[in-house]
Amino acid sequence: MEGIDIEVSEVGLRDGLQSINQIMPTEAKKRWISALAAAGVPEIEVGSFVPARILPQLADTMEIAQYARTIEGLNVAVLVPNLKGAEQAIKARVHKLTIPLSVSETHSLRNVNRTHLQMLEEVGHIAQLIKRLPVDERPILEGALSTAFGCTIEGTIPEDRVVEIAVALMEAGCDEVGLSDTTGYANPVQVKRLIGKVWAAIGREHLKGIHLHNTRGQGLANVLASVEMGLTTIDSSMGGIGGCPSAPGASGNIVTEDLVFLLEAMGLKTGIDFDALMAARNVVATALPDVELYGFTPDAGLPLGFCSR
Amino acid sequence: MEGIDIEVSEVGLRDGLQSINQIMPTEAKKRWISALAAAGVPEIEVGSFVPARILPQLADTMEIAQYARTIEGLNVAVLVPNLKGAEQAIKARVHKLTIPLSVSETHSLRNVNRTHLQMLEEVGHIAQLIKRLPVDERPILEGALSTAFGCTIEGTIPEDRVVEIAVALMEAGCDEVGLSDTTGYANPVQVKRLIGKVWAAIGREHLKGIHLHNTRGQGLANVLASVEMGLTTIDSSMGGIGGCPSAPGASGNIVTEDLVFLLEAMGLKTGIDFDALMAARNVVATALPDVELYGFTPDAGLPLGFCSR
Repeated sequence: MEGIDIEVSEVGLRDGLQSINQIMPTEAKKRWISALAAAGVPEIEVGSFVPARILPQLADTMEIAQYARTIEGLNVAVLVPNLKGAEQAIKARVHKLTIPLSVSETHSLRNVNRTHLQMLEEVGHIAQLIKRLPVDERPILEGALSTAFGCTIEGTIPEDRVVEIAVALMEAGCDEVGLSDTTGYANPVQVKRLIGKVWAAIGREHLKGIHLHNTRGQGLANVLASVEMGLTTIDSSMGGIGGCPSAPGASGNIVTEDLVFLLEAMGLKTGIDFDALMAARNVVATALPDVELYGFTPDAGLPLGFCSR
Repeated sequence: MEGIDIEVSEVGLRDGLQSINQIMPTEAKKRWISALAAAGVPEIEVGSFVPARILPQLADTMEIAQYARTIEGLNVAVLVPNLKGAEQAIKARVHKLTIPLSVSETHSLRNVNRTHLQMLEEVGHIAQLIKRLPVDERPILEGALSTAFGCTIEGTIPEDRVVEIAVALMEAGCDEVGLSDTTGYANPVQVKRLIGKVWAAIGREHLKGIHLHNTRGQGLANVLASVEMGLTTIDSSMGGIGGCPSAPGASGNIVTEDLVFLLEAMGLKTGIDFDALMAARNVVATALPDVELYGFTPDAGLPLGFCSR
């Protein structure tokens, strides 16, 4: 995006809300989205087109996505697990569809009961569906490489396997892939090495973003490694809510508030106003009084004399 | 130290305990030190030689330092505010004396009621005291550059001022200086830039360590910046207890447990066994039942199949 060095992609409405039992009312979600957009957050993953019986928290994704699309300048993303979800996403006219594919096939089978081959076929069907749209109506199709840094079931994931799946996703018709540390296993050396390997295989322009967890407190160190390498989109969740409910022991997204402070302090423009971001945090705190919101910067405040560059 | 890439310097017994009201019994401190040493922690700052009326939590520093000195292979450090403290530290035969000097003179005046000139004179006296010892009995004298990354009273601290004070500390007779983010203001770009500037002025061999806070959640990102630059000693506190009680709004050391995971995951040897470190954490949890221990890795556990390199 213009004038922005790093695009913060807020995933709290999807990854955050799907991990908690409490259901946020649709109107509160809309207030949250409006507050985020008002703060300058450039992209929001607003929900997931999964059956309501699986994730009742996200049952209103169609209404939410359509609402988000009315906000000028906001990039609206959704997660889709399959072709049916993609059809709904296209109906909602979102800008970006993300379909997760777990590099750990064991995790894929337990999570969505699909093999790699079945997932890649589904991606192919979605890509064909998108190609049938007029050029200026086509959303971006991103394949998210889940468990790319390790799996709580399989353990170590060979990096060559991650690269293979990245190549396969591009061949199946994705516009780009994203790396996802579903389990909070990543370390900065691994982050840099894996980005380099995937870039070598599919080109820098097809891997721009990363989804990191803070399960072991390493989230922002891994962000630093990512931006030092040259990634330009970082996922995060307001208050750090969420994580991956189907990877046992994994929890905790990186905190949008602390991420924005990190990037702005480093002189990287996010386009986000910190005070307005705090107002959005208050919307969440009010709507989810029983959910613990993480983050250090909200408590400590910005440094004395701090101003964004 | 031999076979170690990064030396973790545990400051919980000093920086941690001075920040809490509860007084840890001397015997519990000894158990904590023994457990840390058994885990392979190479250096422990065991206390501070300040008057007991100011910090009753550290009134037993002499006994604790002498006990720590009986543990073979352990590097024993103490903080000293002045010449009188240094005399006690020398009597305790510690390996390292750290005297803090706040680059923010306002902070120095409020914290220890001394100007820069007064502090530098004191450092000079301590250096002379050490030089009168036989060569093989001389402890290392480190000048710690407090508020090097910003001050809660003065705000931005000019980097040239940090460099000037570093030079003055070396001229006053310090063996080395350390950078200290007393207020949790630091960001990774600033960390790298300031290390480079201080190195250019006094030489790489005279700045090896950094003391970072996690006040805004940036601790481990700043650690990454520090080790990428080539620093080899990182201060941290077990459970993240502590911070700086005299810098309003500043709190939270970086967590030893998460730091060790970060470094080992990156392939940097710390010499520390994670399970044994958890045993040391249990000693603290038992001795300080009312103090909240921070850290993500203790809850999440090590990744499946993780082994130190």
